[in-house]
Amino acid sequence: MKIVIDAMGGDNAPKEIVLGAMEAVSQHKDLNITLVGNEKEIKKYLTESANIDIIHTEEVITSEDEPVRAVRRKKNSSLVLMAKEVKENRADACISAGNTGALMSAGLFVVGRTPGIDRPALSPTLPTVDGKGFLLLDVGANVDAKAHHLVQYAIMGSIYTEKVRSINNPTVGLLNVGTEDGKGNDLAKKAFTQLKEAPVNFIGNVEARDILSGAADVVVTDGFSGNIALKTIEGTAMTMFSMLKETFMSSLKTKVAAGMVKSDLKGLKSKLDYSEYGGAGLFGLAAPVIKAHGSSNRRAVYNAIRQASHMVEHNVIDTIETTMETIELDKGENE
Amino acid sequence: MKIVIDAMGGDNAPKEIVLGAMEAVSQHKDLNITLVGNEKEIKKYLTESANIDIIHTEEVITSEDEPVRAVRRKKNSSLVLMAKEVKENRADACISAGNTGALMSAGLFVVGRTPGIDRPALSPTLPTVDGKGFLLLDVGANVDAKAHHLVQYAIMGSIYTEKVRSINNPTVGLLNVGTEDGKGNDLAKKAFTQLKEAPVNFIGNVEARDILSGAADVVVTDGFSGNIALKTIEGTAMTMFSMLKETFMSSLKTKVAAGMVKSDLKGLKSKLDYSEYGGAGLFGLAAPVIKAHGSSNRRAVYNAIRQASHMVEHNVIDTIETTMETIELDKGENE
Repeated sequence: MKIVIDAMGGDNAPKEIVLGAMEAVSQHKDLNITLVGNEKEIKKYLTESANIDIIHTEEVITSEDEPVRAVRRKKNSSLVLMAKEVKENRADACISAGNTGALMSAGLFVVGRTPGIDRPALSPTLPTVDGKGFLLLDVGANVDAKAHHLVQYAIMGSIYTEKVRSINNPTVGLLNVGTEDGKGNDLAKKAFTQLKEAPVNFIGNVEARDILSGAADVVVTDGFSGNIALKTIEGTAMTMFSMLKETFMSSLKTKVAAGMVKSDLKGLKSKLDYSEYGGAGLFGLAAPVIKAHGSSNRRAVYNAIRQASHMVEHNVIDTIETTMETIELDKGENE
Repeated sequence: MKIVIDAMGGDNAPKEIVLGAMEAVSQHKDLNITLVGNEKEIKKYLTESANIDIIHTEEVITSEDEPVRAVRRKKNSSLVLMAKEVKENRADACISAGNTGALMSAGLFVVGRTPGIDRPALSPTLPTVDGKGFLLLDVGANVDAKAHHLVQYAIMGSIYTEKVRSINNPTVGLLNVGTEDGKGNDLAKKAFTQLKEAPVNFIGNVEARDILSGAADVVVTDGFSGNIALKTIEGTAMTMFSMLKETFMSSLKTKVAAGMVKSDLKGLKSKLDYSEYGGAGLFGLAAPVIKAHGSSNRRAVYNAIRQASHMVEHNVIDTIETTMETIELDKGENE
């Protein structure tokens, strides 16, 4: 299996990307990795190059670049060349920790869609209290979604969760403003009706309040609401950690207490760290495309590689395609 | 000034409602309160009845009741009779900690709208790290909002924040998936264009990640997204506190540390407790209508009473009405 990685994407590139890649090939004998980026920079950290190739390029898409334009113009950027490796069948899957919009754009225009899927969905796995985690999609690939897109998300999310996360018959919930049937805006009501007919284990509406407690294994929503939910989780957690830190630094007594629970609190933080679950899959494309978190360290990169290789191993894309062939979706104008 | 309160609404009714009301009249000489509910139950806790009247009724809308139907059928419920007191000018403002949907329904159908406002908005004040707080609207009164509704929210929120929260020229942000201009779904893009022209201090898009850090004094969004944001904040905070508790209970050492910081952590919890900021205003109605949190204790009830009386004192409703007369909104079909 060959996985291609944008070595220049993310806050800690190329160092942590290279280190994560080396760890992955050392642990998985049948894995080949291609790193795309500045060869000189990459070689600074590449102490063991068995099963790792480099495609050299000096062009880079930065986080400030406007995504669609960057993908169109920077044809030799590490991100675009990476996508091309997949498109032209020289690699089975790709990973970038760089510009999210550009990756979505390269995914759509270079890698291409899975037949049967209208819109790709950005799909991170988020932590739950019990450590099981849940898949949230879409968190922003498609901000003006229609009801049948949400059904496609539910199917893709279920297949991924069953095959890669090994959760049997995963539950699917629709993110909504209340748990009762009939709740929500126009989109949510239509999606609810269609999800009841879909070949997934649909358990109805779930509220944002309950998703971190594990209300469903797969939570589907439009990209706008999903992005709001994801960033609210991040913002609230960040705020609470900063308040907690302030509380612990407020007096000698609290500082002593902080010293006593320091390692335990670190454990708490890592429980909430979703890089543990790999990157966010960009589902609905012709091959596995993974968006690793911008601040990914070697461990997060390693986890993203594992995730991508599991997607390849378990034929996630093919299964999505054949499942889509068996069903008919109401894509009515009025959605 | 007379404020009417649904004495039977909320988890701690009527006890905490009555105690909060007694505290309010004891502190504010020109305040009269009418409590609507079961007289016998109310009198159990009403140890001082100066400036407090009771309207007796035995009918109650429960949290399980379907809102619209309940308001229509339970004409003698404490919540509906409360709204009637405002409608018929026997009270200046009303408060309930009961069924949110029923209160919105009674607000719309019994109290009526502010002239110039198309849709009311449920508007809680949420905590920020610096303790200043911000107003989020709408969090669910209107889940299928149009762009001009968001402009009305911005105007109402600004007037409230300036007059009641004493924040001069409050900043208004549009909740969106990115901070750059041109981001968002169709609704957000249209609202952005209209907000630039509105008589408010519009600072552009704000991300959900930054709202608890005080990105804007007033954050406007449609009721669906606002509800997702609000409940995600609640859910994440709840999850973190439960994980924190688990961490502190995990060993003898952490238990000792917990004992040392117990009171400090309580302070942290109260910092995040938005009942400190009063209830959620239902803005856009002909009189101040406040939704106190379902779990309101006497302090939260007291704060909601203060909030309602400030809204009356500072003529918030009249100011909204006269402001709306001065502007023209694009309510185009295509929004």
